[in-house]
Amino acid sequence: MHTYTLAVVPGDGIGKEVTPVALAALRKACDGVAQFRCEQFDLGAERYLRDGAILPDDELARIDQADAILLGAIGDPRVKAGVLERGLLLKLRFSLDQYVNLRPSKLYRGVVSPLREPGDIDFVVVREGTEGLYCGVGGAVRRGTAQEVATEVSVNTAYGVERVVRYAFDLAMRRSRHITLVHKKNVLVNAGDMWQRIVDRVGEEYPAVTHDYLHIDAATIFMVSNPSRFDVILTDNLFGDILTDEAGEVVGGVGYSASGCINASGEHPSMFEPIHGSAPDIAGQGIANPTASVLSAAMLLRHLGLDEPADRIDAAVEADIEQSGSRSRGTEEIGRDILARL
Amino acid sequence: MHTYTLAVVPGDGIGKEVTPVALAALRKACDGVAQFRCEQFDLGAERYLRDGAILPDDELARIDQADAILLGAIGDPRVKAGVLERGLLLKLRFSLDQYVNLRPSKLYRGVVSPLREPGDIDFVVVREGTEGLYCGVGGAVRRGTAQEVATEVSVNTAYGVERVVRYAFDLAMRRSRHITLVHKKNVLVNAGDMWQRIVDRVGEEYPAVTHDYLHIDAATIFMVSNPSRFDVILTDNLFGDILTDEAGEVVGGVGYSASGCINASGEHPSMFEPIHGSAPDIAGQGIANPTASVLSAAMLLRHLGLDEPADRIDAAVEADIEQSGSRSRGTEEIGRDILARL
Ligand SMILES: CC(C)[C@H](C(=O)O)[C@@H](O)C(=O)O
Ligand SMILES: CC(C)[C@H](C(=O)O)[C@@H](O)C(=O)O
Repeated sequence: MHTYTLAVVPGDGIGKEVTPVALAALRKACDGVAQFRCEQFDLGAERYLRDGAILPDDELARIDQADAILLGAIGDPRVKAGVLERGLLLKLRFSLDQYVNLRPSKLYRGVVSPLREPGDIDFVVVREGTEGLYCGVGGAVRRGTAQEVATEVSVNTAYGVERVVRYAFDLAMRRSRHITLVHKKNVLVNAGDMWQRIVDRVGEEYPAVTHDYLHIDAATIFMVSNPSRFDVILTDNLFGDILTDEAGEVVGGVGYSASGCINASGEHPSMFEPIHGSAPDIAGQGIANPTASVLSAAMLLRHLGLDEPADRIDAAVEADIEQSGSRSRGTEEIGRDILARL
Repeated sequence: MHTYTLAVVPGDGIGKEVTPVALAALRKACDGVAQFRCEQFDLGAERYLRDGAILPDDELARIDQADAILLGAIGDPRVKAGVLERGLLLKLRFSLDQYVNLRPSKLYRGVVSPLREPGDIDFVVVREGTEGLYCGVGGAVRRGTAQEVATEVSVNTAYGVERVVRYAFDLAMRRSRHITLVHKKNVLVNAGDMWQRIVDRVGEEYPAVTHDYLHIDAATIFMVSNPSRFDVILTDNLFGDILTDEAGEVVGGVGYSASGCINASGEHPSMFEPIHGSAPDIAGQGIANPTASVLSAAMLLRHLGLDEPADRIDAAVEADIEQSGSRSRGTEEIGRDILARL
């Protein structure tokens, strides 16, 4: 039986509450199939407020040795916005070159969508993870004066775009063979034009896959008016962030949405996390829904090639939602219910 | 009786179909109150494809002499994305320093929202109109090669941010005295931090107005889960573009959403346009809903101080939607119905 090493970063707020549930589900699903050696990393607001450390080099190096990473959520109102997000979460995504941010959206039976007629929603957003406006380029001059100028630079490379575009086409081949590129190429003409050209060129190698294009503003409309039209959405880092949160709400709340930050070249470990945040407003009350974290654990297993236990987690979650999704349950109870089905 | 000069730019697609309806409503509402001299500008795809002109300097100068501008929609699939948007629409907004892009969202009685429980939706997005990622800064090197790098730069100035922030606070004083700042300050730390600091500082001058903050991704969630929580949303150019399209769908489709590109200093004319695009898919069929354009004409009148006729247009539109909004009607019929109520 193979033993995998997992780096576990519960992080902040409800991240600390949902991650243990996901780990318990992962272990139970893999009983007799695989073993896990989990190394816990005390990273996030508590640690930062205690000793000022955000992501020390030696801890990053140890995380980089893991087979995969399970992350809870990052962010705390006591810490200035950006410090932990950029210093920890984005630093992990960027240092480990997790260029595919994979975010499936599915409306489970038993979940009430806020839409009147949601239709059959089941799509995946392939969000670029290492470029765009997230790269941290930009700055400010004359800060705090009436002459201040602050910039943010979206950096996009053919190298970075092409690899995530190829990933999306490969994924589309395994789904219903349609990709929707989302950008704002009528305004962001440099980056948008490059994305479109690369999609067109790579698309020629995949004659079985069709692709169309939507501006991000139009995409947020269709996400409400007709989300079942989507199959694979391909987009940049910022637009992917925005669209997947909207999508999460449309499928009944981000509590059901998992994600994987994938280093598809295999040089570094990939990281799996719910798309929801640390939710300081409900943290510590034991009421956070661990489902998205459990589904992230299933994505992690599938990434490691452990398809069978991953399928079992997915099936357990689906059954749990269908039968008990409408009941008001705490974190532990949902965890127990899911585990009982494994 | 005062005569106002209007520059009319019907533009492309359905812009050409809805603008005459809006003008007819405007004239009828102002009968006996004010007169209008309308100068039509043949700008948009047809003109560009005919003689290559996008927005000649002398035409821009003439538009700049008008008291206000009524615009239809810009964009055509025969023209490469960005050419008309940047060369015509954004050039007007930027050259005429229309720094407040005002976009009300209201769920009219008689309109079916795609949301199960929309609540009472009535808010205004104050979108910055002359900065951010829309300023056209950026470029590409090694275009078309595997080494291509394409950038887009969001430029934000204290000058530009403070004036739109002040506008939002003044507006909030006339509404329910609450502002929600929307940005992505946990990632776009330079621009986001400047926006937040300026809102905090200006806010001290308006002790009666409260303000809170949402990341753009969270805002797209609340736009679906609880849109009635919003009153005044204050945000940058790109986030405003995205949020207002989503909002338009939430209140029953962008066909009901008007907007004003306001030069609040009064040095240049302001411009009024529906938030919907040129809709090439339905153009030429006489089925476009002119309501958003008619409501834009009402915003124009209000901007000129003609509150009474503006109110009458708003009331006519409201009554029309309540009584006939669910019937399938063509552009002309809706126009006739609204005019009959004036
Ligand atoms: C916390 C934040 C930096 C992050 C992002 O913007 O990517 C989050 O919103 C997400 O989507 O994972
Ligand atoms: C056509 C386009 C350039 C424009 C924008 O992005 O501002 C439109 O989407 C809008 O919202 O008015």
